[in-house]
Amino acid sequence: MRSEQVEPTEQACNQALVAVRDSLYVIGGKWKLPIIIALVQANGPVRFRELQRLLETITPKVLSKELKDLELNEFITRTVYDTTPVTVEYQVTDYSKTLGNVLFELREWGMQHRTRLKAATRARREKASAQ
Amino acid sequence: MRSEQVEPTEQACNQALVAVRDSLYVIGGKWKLPIIIALVQANGPVRFRELQRLLETITPKVLSKELKDLELNEFITRTVYDTTPVTVEYQVTDYSKTLGNVLFELREWGMQHRTRLKAATRARREKASAQ
Repeated sequence: MRSEQVEPTEQACNQALVAVRDSLYVIGGKWKLPIIIALVQANGPVRFRELQRLLETITPKVLSKELKDLELNEFITRTVYDTTPVTVEYQVTDYSKTLGNVLFELREWGMQHRTRLKAATRARREKASAQ
Repeated sequence: MRSEQVEPTEQACNQALVAVRDSLYVIGGKWKLPIIIALVQANGPVRFRELQRLLETITPKVLSKELKDLELNEFITRTVYDTTPVTVEYQVTDYSKTLGNVLFELREWGMQHRTRLKAATRARREKASAQ
């Protein structure tokens, strides 16, 4: 089934696949982007507990793991203050700002998808009541 | 710690969080976007086996599950032809096209991230050889 002709498409396909996969590998999953959004919007350092509150359903164990990954990829910094008890604060780096367009498009898409689902539910309800 | 003043930021934060989470709920995970990209770039119907080949490391079980989810959310259509053996083809719907901007930004970000990692590795190597 493979021929010379399909190769350009396949190559372009692979490049896009590889690049999107790279992104999903680093920022994919349920929590990484929500954590970054919370920190961006906080517009300053945020403590662990406050971050946990902002993210509502995240467990401390998962939050801790996700923060480590984000620190490793240089999206956030972690600062420990020698208070009693110790204070730990997280803050986004400039590198997080490179995600601006990705976050914008995901937000836009999420909003239109919600609107679409609502319209579909309404249409079903109207159809049912007309019968 | 909560006051009237923080509420606008928090509200904006929650709206963005909710919308991005909505998106991640529907198109998040390791495979959904790669499957959509493969189908978009195929520019026509694709059989299960061919899709599996394009996605390289996906297992048939996972591919089957992901295709069902994508069909449920109206990103793809599944057509069964009464041949022997049965032929099953998948194709993207117009609704998949709404993901264009999201995919574009994820691809751009993935490419710049890879470039950045390469530059960092090169810088480390040069520093090490200069010592």
